[in-house]
Amino acid sequence: MNETPGAERFADLKRREQTTNPQSEIVHFPASEPLPLDCGGALAPLSIAYQTYGTLNAEKSNLILICHALTGDQHAANLHPITGKPGWWDTMVGPGKSIDTDRYFVLCPNVIGGCMGTTGPSSINPETGRAYGPDFPVITVRDMVRAQARLLDHLGIDQVLSVIGGSMGGMQVLEWAATYQDRVFSAIPIACAARHSSQNIAFHEVGRQAVMADPEWCEGRYLDEGKSPRKGLAVARMAAHITYLSDLALHDKFGRNLQDREKVTFGFDADFQVESYLRHQGMSFVDRFDANSYLYITRAMDYFDIAADHDGVLANAFAGTKTRFCIVSFTSDWLFPTEESRDVVHALNAVAANVSFVEIESNKGHDAFLLHEPELFDTVRGFLSAAARHRGVKLPDEGA
Amino acid sequence: MNETPGAERFADLKRREQTTNPQSEIVHFPASEPLPLDCGGALAPLSIAYQTYGTLNAEKSNLILICHALTGDQHAANLHPITGKPGWWDTMVGPGKSIDTDRYFVLCPNVIGGCMGTTGPSSINPETGRAYGPDFPVITVRDMVRAQARLLDHLGIDQVLSVIGGSMGGMQVLEWAATYQDRVFSAIPIACAARHSSQNIAFHEVGRQAVMADPEWCEGRYLDEGKSPRKGLAVARMAAHITYLSDLALHDKFGRNLQDREKVTFGFDADFQVESYLRHQGMSFVDRFDANSYLYITRAMDYFDIAADHDGVLANAFAGTKTRFCIVSFTSDWLFPTEESRDVVHALNAVAANVSFVEIESNKGHDAFLLHEPELFDTVRGFLSAAARHRGVKLPDEGA
Repeated sequence: MNETPGAERFADLKRREQTTNPQSEIVHFPASEPLPLDCGGALAPLSIAYQTYGTLNAEKSNLILICHALTGDQHAANLHPITGKPGWWDTMVGPGKSIDTDRYFVLCPNVIGGCMGTTGPSSINPETGRAYGPDFPVITVRDMVRAQARLLDHLGIDQVLSVIGGSMGGMQVLEWAATYQDRVFSAIPIACAARHSSQNIAFHEVGRQAVMADPEWCEGRYLDEGKSPRKGLAVARMAAHITYLSDLALHDKFGRNLQDREKVTFGFDADFQVESYLRHQGMSFVDRFDANSYLYITRAMDYFDIAADHDGVLANAFAGTKTRFCIVSFTSDWLFPTEESRDVVHALNAVAANVSFVEIESNKGHDAFLLHEPELFDTVRGFLSAAARHRGVKLPDEGA
Repeated sequence: MNETPGAERFADLKRREQTTNPQSEIVHFPASEPLPLDCGGALAPLSIAYQTYGTLNAEKSNLILICHALTGDQHAANLHPITGKPGWWDTMVGPGKSIDTDRYFVLCPNVIGGCMGTTGPSSINPETGRAYGPDFPVITVRDMVRAQARLLDHLGIDQVLSVIGGSMGGMQVLEWAATYQDRVFSAIPIACAARHSSQNIAFHEVGRQAVMADPEWCEGRYLDEGKSPRKGLAVARMAAHITYLSDLALHDKFGRNLQDREKVTFGFDADFQVESYLRHQGMSFVDRFDANSYLYITRAMDYFDIAADHDGVLANAFAGTKTRFCIVSFTSDWLFPTEESRDVVHALNAVAANVSFVEIESNKGHDAFLLHEPELFDTVRGFLSAAARHRGVKLPDEGA
């Protein structure tokens, strides 16, 4: 991890700029309209940064809400303002793509707790005039969804054509379908579960401890101190990144291949390609992500347990639903194994919901939802077309 | 991680005492007898600390060599001098147990690179008079085995009745069988592989980066500086510990159970039992293990690739072997999945070796080899008895 301190400082500033003044549309809800939170507190004021793609039709019936994952953000299908790389779902979203921006109006907000313009731990705490840091309230996935509902209110959208997302994005999709049944015409939760497993909580806890062990975390007040817990956050990312892949994917991609050398060096340099790859993943992540956001968002995922919020019975969460569901899992995803998607399907079946379920054969692990998976593309395209047809959605250029 | 600094210092001193003056038998090989290493260097002088259990018979034919895993040590079946707890294989080794110390003479040495009395990075470097630290040579599993062979020479043992171990211990078993064919009458590699996988290298790299990210690591010279990278090592241990269990084991043991509370606290305390458990694992580990030893031993495992040492063909490593093999794997071990044991079996079959293979149904994950697994106990007991019978081993009390 041999980035120069000057480059690190520059990266931190560039990232901070996106927190305070994002290259996105942004809506500010005043302190007089607090967002109530599951913890009992509230967020006020509240800002939500978001991106849109495509055109809203006159009936406002062609909106697709994209929920991003733990380390994602609102930049789903445009060049990322920090990395300069294509958006995280550029493979999925765009003209003629599965989420076809010639047909649909796509909305992707940054979650609360995030660091790309929506209110999060690096936002200014109105009570102190400084960054919240560890005084930011602990939020839940339901809080994230509640904030998004407020954004839809602001945009005048009663019901989305579809809400879609993978991993934590999928958790939000399920939460949307449970909490705002009438506002969700269709839902596509991908590579997720109705609750976070013990193993997943364990991996998150390791990541948080890695961040908190970094003395530059400064008990969460690193922004005040002019510090940055880059090393701890990089370690957290490296550990997490392994869980996003599969054993087979790593084997196929790297095996025991050496990095730019013919023999092992009998040292602690990155002899193996997989080491070099992981170090790169860790370092590039900290350039674009805030350490406290990582703590708060992983915590929100840990707390996620829809059944627990409905007397311990998952099906209760969806009783009476009219939403059309398309559940997607991947065979090699060991973070959110197919079995957990099947539990959701069973709960939906128990309330006679309209649900289709696709387990996609893939060796790419959990990250498959972000990668080139033609079967996923076809599934999403087909399901959205059917949903639009059932809803009688007119294309933007068909007029009112 | 709220241990008091005073208690931490005391724990560090207690651990250091075992490095320099272990409560074990110890043999010192003088500087005039250097141990050659795969890296091209040598270790001189060399100390090997070991424990024995039972009685060597007159023919010296009833010796069972136990090879310990990454974070194990020589204290397989006695109270541990630091933790005061039973040895790590107390379930397996003892009078009347599967490795029956009434019948066999059991030898368990601490590996080179370790921190319990055998020469490792916290030993004194004769060139400087201070701890080796990062100047310790990078070692391999074959180097560990080469040191053990020297210990057997010293004890006057030509051939062991059996060599047995799990995880990295199993790697040593395979290396013994490959490198010293004539000295191994039988071999029991458990929960291991003939090479370290890409995913396993990746997890090790995360652990090493966690240690190295701790400013108290001091570029490896923490002993000189009076520091101790406890936080980094604890994070490394936490991450590794998850990989030793199975998703199902964690679910059965902890699920989403809360720790001494009825509701989540909306904070970063250990709300969930699995978090509390992991934190405890991390903290107690650093009391008994040296951070640099962790770096060096994980590196040795990463480098392990028996086929690579034999023209890329695993079977070549065992050509002509007369050793009797018993390979054991566990169904829920995702660190060393059964498939990798099967690769070893196939290689042994290819050279017409005497091999039996047992895949044990267990939900305990990789750590199953350390836990109460009756089928493992029965397998080891039966295989050892047969080996002893075939070798014509006389019990210690049968006289010459």
